[in-house]
Amino acid sequence: MALIVQKYGGTSVANPERIRNLARRVARYKAMGHQIVVVVSAMSGETNRLLSLAKEIMPEPDPRELDVMLSTGEQVTISMTALALMELGLKAKSYTGAQVKILTDDAFTKARILSIDDTNIRQDLDDGYVVVVAGFQGVDANGNITTLGRGGSDTTGVALAAALKADECQIYTDVDGVYTTDPRLVPEARRLSKITFEEMLELASQGSKVLQIRSVEFAGKYKVKLRVLSSFEEEGDGTLITFEEENNMEQPVISGIAFNRDEAKITVLGVPDKPGIAYQILGPIAEANVDVDMIIQNTGADGTTDFTFTVHKNEMNKALSILRDKVQSHIGAREISGDDKIAKVSIVGVGMRSHVGIASQMFRTLAEEGINIQMISTSEIKIAVVIDEKYLELAVRVLHKAFELEEA
Amino acid sequence: MALIVQKYGGTSVANPERIRNLARRVARYKAMGHQIVVVVSAMSGETNRLLSLAKEIMPEPDPRELDVMLSTGEQVTISMTALALMELGLKAKSYTGAQVKILTDDAFTKARILSIDDTNIRQDLDDGYVVVVAGFQGVDANGNITTLGRGGSDTTGVALAAALKADECQIYTDVDGVYTTDPRLVPEARRLSKITFEEMLELASQGSKVLQIRSVEFAGKYKVKLRVLSSFEEEGDGTLITFEEENNMEQPVISGIAFNRDEAKITVLGVPDKPGIAYQILGPIAEANVDVDMIIQNTGADGTTDFTFTVHKNEMNKALSILRDKVQSHIGAREISGDDKIAKVSIVGVGMRSHVGIASQMFRTLAEEGINIQMISTSEIKIAVVIDEKYLELAVRVLHKAFELEEA
Repeated sequence: MALIVQKYGGTSVANPERIRNLARRVARYKAMGHQIVVVVSAMSGETNRLLSLAKEIMPEPDPRELDVMLSTGEQVTISMTALALMELGLKAKSYTGAQVKILTDDAFTKARILSIDDTNIRQDLDDGYVVVVAGFQGVDANGNITTLGRGGSDTTGVALAAALKADECQIYTDVDGVYTTDPRLVPEARRLSKITFEEMLELASQGSKVLQIRSVEFAGKYKVKLRVLSSFEEEGDGTLITFEEENNMEQPVISGIAFNRDEAKITVLGVPDKPGIAYQILGPIAEANVDVDMIIQNTGADGTTDFTFTVHKNEMNKALSILRDKVQSHIGAREISGDDKIAKVSIVGVGMRSHVGIASQMFRTLAEEGINIQMISTSEIKIAVVIDEKYLELAVRVLHKAFELEEA
Repeated sequence: MALIVQKYGGTSVANPERIRNLARRVARYKAMGHQIVVVVSAMSGETNRLLSLAKEIMPEPDPRELDVMLSTGEQVTISMTALALMELGLKAKSYTGAQVKILTDDAFTKARILSIDDTNIRQDLDDGYVVVVAGFQGVDANGNITTLGRGGSDTTGVALAAALKADECQIYTDVDGVYTTDPRLVPEARRLSKITFEEMLELASQGSKVLQIRSVEFAGKYKVKLRVLSSFEEEGDGTLITFEEENNMEQPVISGIAFNRDEAKITVLGVPDKPGIAYQILGPIAEANVDVDMIIQNTGADGTTDFTFTVHKNEMNKALSILRDKVQSHIGAREISGDDKIAKVSIVGVGMRSHVGIASQMFRTLAEEGINIQMISTSEIKIAVVIDEKYLELAVRVLHKAFELEEA
């Protein structure tokens, strides 16, 4: 008998028929003797519907009140899920985040979980109940409803699994696992039966949309065994996300290729090279709450520096205005330019640690196709490059082939 | 400066535009220096939508889970209302029933309020906030979400007014007050500027749908000054529901006429007259949770009794089956019949106490129109008769005229 947390996303609870499917799967696991906690998101589209409703009243909705509104989405699905389980003859009981209680800080719309009280859930599990918990939401120390931000239901699932010391946290999505890359781009892309946490973290942060990055961090921190599965298929073991790196000669060097079309590049050219340039450029950007991803600084021969970084496409113009209004004359930069026609491609794999020449193989592969590399950034298990957006598909395909990812 | 509780029903919050109207009214009251607590229902249609969703999953939804689902309706409107108030520049804060907390018993879908913690609301009011509270919902001692049943938002408003010792509880509806009778039936019907609690209670229980009867009982018990107003009109004082009967010679004897098409009559004929007949007939009915309204027993000359009572039309067949299956042979009744083509008409007024001849005037008025009276029941301030359904409109109109209700 195992204790399993199963998390179902919006498409898995999109309508009563899918919720009945979900209930039938839970019933099968229950029949095997397992204890089950189900975490559900809002029905797909519901969070956006509620957000529109709020914005119709107040274009920039107050965050506390927005969370009161948004949290109803999951509250409806926990009720429906519990009813569907009961209709199958199971004992079931729903909990909102506040009822659990999932204590968070008071950062409305993007709260962080501080602690989970597992007393009632444990009692219910021991009494034979399937426990259904609302994802994405919690309650702060003053009893205010909070939400964890988009994708927060994954985090709820993992956090509950950690609190309950569950044997496994299963994340049911509309894909059947983690792939070597997006199969819509590369038909030869292959489902990975296993991947390490570090790799998953790099893949998630590099734009693979299977799991929310915070939930992966959380799982890594609390050593929660995560499995990604399809909610639309009866069979299949999905992808297990493990802590152990296998010392296996046959393990591929590269596990997967991630890509991201959402970033834009900002270049600050010809800055007289003095200490503190990076802070003078990025300080005002950070103050304006613009997230920066890649950062590169190159010192030229003429005593000036070129400074390049990437931000989300939606924030490129905001960042450019800040630099031109507040920074350019101050630091004496020659030119400031933006480019939102870029894409980022990353190869990820723990095998890089023990293999050399991976980077040069990547660069050669791209060069052979005439793809110019604009930026490079690396970590111990990842190499990311920025290229012209129009070469994205080509780059992913040739890299997938070059690193033999289609082969098991 | 007064403390006012304003309750808005489903049609008053049906869409963003109406919620903005509501916010503008609250702002006017706030500008006069009043402290305002707003109680809101779910947007009209929303509770039914959620109920359908639940029934699609489980035809007879578990009551605990149903309350989890239904309570989201008001949770959405408190958020929208608070946002609309903020958009006008007011300080506003929303509370669910659980957040207040409005403690109820655990009778899911029809819970009763046990106590209200007014600490936070008082603090917020003193800090200049408009406090927005979800009607219809509460929380039981174990933290389960409960609902108060249909129309429960009125009860929330009155209970909050009682807990806060508010100066007035204003109930905003789609009518501008309590009328002498339904103006759709009698165009001459007149809005009453005042009515006593007892009269309101009789009118509410006799089928006038302006206020939920439990809220009127609650208001009477805790001496809450209630006022019924239109949410669609800027002006007008609505109808004040008072505790004091005015000793005024000019006060009309009859305040209003209520009617009800929802009942059916069940007749048990020729029962050998023995003690305990009433219990033997009504006991099994009560056990089946069928509510009985009027009850009449007539002993005939031949040593048998005829026993007649009314139930809701929807429950007539259930009641008939119970009587035929379990009761008829046991008590030796000759015949059991049902009639759902009846209507009940009641005249209500505290003036009856000091005037004689009201009943005979009522009966004469009906007789002159050839309307046969099938059942009669009276209280100190009410006379109710059951007649053939087809004469309902005629009866209400001629009684309205006979008792001169169109005159101020």
